[in-house]
Amino acid sequence: MSFKINKYDKNKEYFKRAEKVVPSGVYGHLGPAEGCFIPVSAFPTFAEKAQGAYFWDVDGNRFIDYMCAYGPNVLGYGDKDVNNAAFEQAKIADCTTAPSTKMIELAELLVDTVASADWAFFAKNGGDTTTLAIMTARAHTGRKKLIFASGFYHGVTPWTQKLGYPGILEEDVANNLYIPWNDYEAFEKMVEENEGQIAAYIATPYMHGNFRDNELPADGYWQKVRKLCDEKGILLIIDDVRCGFRLDLAGSDHYYGFEADLICFCKALANGWSVSALCGKEEFKGTVSGITFTGSYWLSAVPFAAAIACIKKMKKLNLPEKLRKDGLMLTDGLRDAATNNGFNLVVTGEPALFYLRVDDKDGNLMIHQEWVAECVKRGVYFTNHHNHFMNAAMTEQDIKLTIEIADEAFKVVRKNHPELD
Amino acid sequence: MSFKINKYDKNKEYFKRAEKVVPSGVYGHLGPAEGCFIPVSAFPTFAEKAQGAYFWDVDGNRFIDYMCAYGPNVLGYGDKDVNNAAFEQAKIADCTTAPSTKMIELAELLVDTVASADWAFFAKNGGDTTTLAIMTARAHTGRKKLIFASGFYHGVTPWTQKLGYPGILEEDVANNLYIPWNDYEAFEKMVEENEGQIAAYIATPYMHGNFRDNELPADGYWQKVRKLCDEKGILLIIDDVRCGFRLDLAGSDHYYGFEADLICFCKALANGWSVSALCGKEEFKGTVSGITFTGSYWLSAVPFAAAIACIKKMKKLNLPEKLRKDGLMLTDGLRDAATNNGFNLVVTGEPALFYLRVDDKDGNLMIHQEWVAECVKRGVYFTNHHNHFMNAAMTEQDIKLTIEIADEAFKVVRKNHPELD
Repeated sequence: MSFKINKYDKNKEYFKRAEKVVPSGVYGHLGPAEGCFIPVSAFPTFAEKAQGAYFWDVDGNRFIDYMCAYGPNVLGYGDKDVNNAAFEQAKIADCTTAPSTKMIELAELLVDTVASADWAFFAKNGGDTTTLAIMTARAHTGRKKLIFASGFYHGVTPWTQKLGYPGILEEDVANNLYIPWNDYEAFEKMVEENEGQIAAYIATPYMHGNFRDNELPADGYWQKVRKLCDEKGILLIIDDVRCGFRLDLAGSDHYYGFEADLICFCKALANGWSVSALCGKEEFKGTVSGITFTGSYWLSAVPFAAAIACIKKMKKLNLPEKLRKDGLMLTDGLRDAATNNGFNLVVTGEPALFYLRVDDKDGNLMIHQEWVAECVKRGVYFTNHHNHFMNAAMTEQDIKLTIEIADEAFKVVRKNHPELD
Repeated sequence: MSFKINKYDKNKEYFKRAEKVVPSGVYGHLGPAEGCFIPVSAFPTFAEKAQGAYFWDVDGNRFIDYMCAYGPNVLGYGDKDVNNAAFEQAKIADCTTAPSTKMIELAELLVDTVASADWAFFAKNGGDTTTLAIMTARAHTGRKKLIFASGFYHGVTPWTQKLGYPGILEEDVANNLYIPWNDYEAFEKMVEENEGQIAAYIATPYMHGNFRDNELPADGYWQKVRKLCDEKGILLIIDDVRCGFRLDLAGSDHYYGFEADLICFCKALANGWSVSALCGKEEFKGTVSGITFTGSYWLSAVPFAAAIACIKKMKKLNLPEKLRKDGLMLTDGLRDAATNNGFNLVVTGEPALFYLRVDDKDGNLMIHQEWVAECVKRGVYFTNHHNHFMNAAMTEQDIKLTIEIADEAFKVVRKNHPELD
């Protein structure tokens, strides 16, 4: 075994300090509990610095980071072009009583770039845009009900959550209907059973839910859905918060050959600077205008400047093609490493956002989790049951090193489990 | 008349461009429609730069800005101490897979600073924190209903809105109960009529709602409310998004001599950098930990670094005292200017967040709106029916100039309305 095993002494000390003043210590998708299901012993909790494809934790361990801050890091941490645009703007104006014309510039750029965008509305969270989208659908149609595809995640606003989750009421989710992913007949049946009552179908461009192999859309799925939505006056809302700009700069709906009515962007929009956008077709612009929706920092100029620089650079790099190529190179190598060690690594989803699962005959996830932990302890940041993210700063050398570490991690798991032989 | 009248030719051109690609052109509280009720002819729509107490619009007009980006500008636009902290942090790391220890540092600083804070949970919008607060109250009590005080504003999440607003369902607001502000008996009666069903009373520290004279809490109001909440197991949530840090660095609940269970901060927290915080008492920390609540940019380090610098500087400046003194100097001068021109200017709310209304015998608001428009056209940015905000960069000279411009604005209105004589 040749790779150094990380120590996390300072991480653990900081986590103890954090637990005193922050609920859960680190919460949400960045926290050990919800985000990763990696034991804290294998897992860094605090970052010291970040650059390009890497971050360093507070113990000085470096990680090749395949989570990319759960998406925002698309060009590489600390990208000079994006950060310089942000810094220059910050010297002039950021959050002001009248907004900057950067808002117009960014909206125009999105309208030019995104196939289904005739306009853009900016906010801070991906969830701000999914919420505005469903409010728009309800206001536009005068209908209440929403269809969700199983495995969905559209943020944390109460309407996106599930009955039984803490703080969620039956009223919050009373108009939510659920169908299996990729099952057009189920969609058709749901629409039929709720004739004239469906405001919108909201879904991600493909099923990249957690704790399950990811699933690309079946041939013709989106085209049939689009057609029925048109016939029935149902808005088709694409939540492109996670995939947006990684599959296709024109939108992931465009990538799969259809057009959304409303499309939600966030993570990759500004390489980590806080901004989200709802884009949509002209016919819904008036409805959006009538909705009461605003926030303290929503028209701040610094994230707009960052987003403009980020989109321009993604175009220049022809980024989706690079991420696909790199993602394929990586996942092919990981799969081979698994096979060479007698494991079956199931790779699903799009290569730019690959999902991994070490297939265990018993169907339990322990072997997968142990393998991921061995990778993380050696400086490759994977998570257990969430899709990963590629970024522009990742090099072929990073990918090769990742595969070597993954190979060693498989060997360690093999050694620790003689019963598998 | 001695003051130059602003021209807005470029503002208007930009607004036309904006309308093509952004719903409403400029939306929300920054937009002419919702935010200010000032005719676009009197009103700049886009800022070119901002520094200290001023912003300049795209036509080069300078404004002494009493809206402060609707609150975030508390130290002055482009404050060097805050921005340098943000820039230095941005060079190291911002939005990363594991968060920065700046999160801990900021949480510790809030716990040290805010009387009712035993912990802090960070997000992006004020509305993220009010939503987490009511979810916490529901999860903690197992009850559904919320009490609101008339004139409330707690963000734009559907539960905060009103039936009849576009996109809002009866389910969204089914558990909302409304009482008049400052009426303890009404609160007591509402609690009695809904015995064992009230999860929380959510309110701002004083009534600073729009389109109404603002009202400070009556003597003993909060103390009586606090006592009944304790007796009945109702959480007392203070929405300090607007007032927070302007009245008292220890929280506006502390300012009025009581303690909230949960308290929401946003605007003034980081001088415009995007961050909000829910703080609260130890006994609710476990409940918050169990709630599914997260966002892509919530643990970004740059706004944390900015917030730390902002809080430290507010402390050093003893800011609330200065804002109160300056607000009194300004509003006394404005009232005198009104009186000298035969008008009655009604000033309400706290001096640091004063609300203005030119009292018209007919009870209509046209004279007020005309006066505000004449001020804005001369470089003093007031709004019509929203409270204003003081900031640390405002000088005595700015205040004197404001009063002179306000005086001329009163004279113009007087001249345009001979029927008032």
